[in-house]
Amino acid sequence: MDSAEFLDILGNANRRRILRLLAERPCYVTEISDFLGVSPKAVIDHLEKLEAAGLVESRTDSKRRKYFSIARHVRLEVTVSPYEFGTKSAYPASSRLDITSCRQLSIDLEHDPETADSGVTASEVEPDDVVSLTEALHDVEQLENELSLAQRWAQGKLTELREHLESVLDDEQSRLLADLLLALADDSADTETLGREVGAPPGVVEELLEKLVDEGIVREDEGTYRLIDA
Amino acid sequence: MDSAEFLDILGNANRRRILRLLAERPCYVTEISDFLGVSPKAVIDHLEKLEAAGLVESRTDSKRRKYFSIARHVRLEVTVSPYEFGTKSAYPASSRLDITSCRQLSIDLEHDPETADSGVTASEVEPDDVVSLTEALHDVEQLENELSLAQRWAQGKLTELREHLESVLDDEQSRLLADLLLALADDSADTETLGREVGAPPGVVEELLEKLVDEGIVREDEGTYRLIDA
Repeated sequence: MDSAEFLDILGNANRRRILRLLAERPCYVTEISDFLGVSPKAVIDHLEKLEAAGLVESRTDSKRRKYFSIARHVRLEVTVSPYEFGTKSAYPASSRLDITSCRQLSIDLEHDPETADSGVTASEVEPDDVVSLTEALHDVEQLENELSLAQRWAQGKLTELREHLESVLDDEQSRLLADLLLALADDSADTETLGREVGAPPGVVEELLEKLVDEGIVREDEGTYRLIDA
Repeated sequence: MDSAEFLDILGNANRRRILRLLAERPCYVTEISDFLGVSPKAVIDHLEKLEAAGLVESRTDSKRRKYFSIARHVRLEVTVSPYEFGTKSAYPASSRLDITSCRQLSIDLEHDPETADSGVTASEVEPDDVVSLTEALHDVEQLENELSLAQRWAQGKLTELREHLESVLDDEQSRLLADLLLALADDSADTETLGREVGAPPGVVEELLEKLVDEGIVREDEGTYRLIDA
């Protein structure tokens, strides 16, 4: 599901209330309608939209009553800043994902002494007793909170560094220059590629790159530009 | 701004397009109206909502034309799962925030050799030259991507562990039992506090707690319940 579709769906307060209710327990239409104080017809309309988006699914029980539940796990992140309006929506990453491939992040889930301090995640650990499972779940909940806090920290840092960079560049085109530099920090590239990445015409990009080369910030080698080493 | 207000605002495709445009550059009403192909009146309506929510601000230039820009950094996270419908919205955490207080997470920003490997963040580092600033910014961007990936991993893990726990509990009340156990993993508590935390009547909670005590999963001590050690 793309972020725009997700935001359209979440933009309605009653649909949010339905999702909140179904996350507590699967429900019949009449239960939802009673709980929300909304007509069954309106509830059915919302459920149809939620089903079409793949967020909700329905089953029929032995008494042939249809009940609804949340179909799958989806996550959405929205960032609004003077430099970015970003939306990301995604299904959860597989628990077999190799988090150790992260360069700047290490995770240490304490309930797993074998992998602690090694930056390796506890993805293979599946304790079977209730107490260990509860503690593992509690650790992952805490980790989730810490990740959320770290992301807010990173967002603040991004804005701060970006403002600083643009003020140091001190140019009418500071914003575009910063975009270009960031694209070059990712990888060396030619004018055309850079133009596509920053959304500016090749002519403008070339002029700015020449300025950066003159200032000794960027090097050019057979049409490919790269950031000089710090 | 609360999450509901944020979602109401983002639920409109044209408001999202306005935010995307303003994140590129500050604009006048007529520019936005031309870009979106929407009447100036409709644009003004959207801008008023965005201003009232504190997302957008306006200034008047020397020719007395009013132009609009994004006012502040906001972040929203939405999680939908069979066990949760959660929304969080927040302003970025201060860059002075002490990320080292995180128990399960350490961050290593490579552009700062002094703090590397110590789990200390680079919040005090403010390089002044363009190349170092660009590299610092690029590192934080990468960190942000890694945090996002790690969060998706944590969400998947949460669902997996939760399903596993409920199946091991194997009880009609598995969901409520799991909620109780998680509340106890956080801190020992009495029946009343636990009832409030899991949203169930004290009578029901007491019955389930007795069952958990009988099974040797929970201990009771003068009306306070705690999880036994794993």
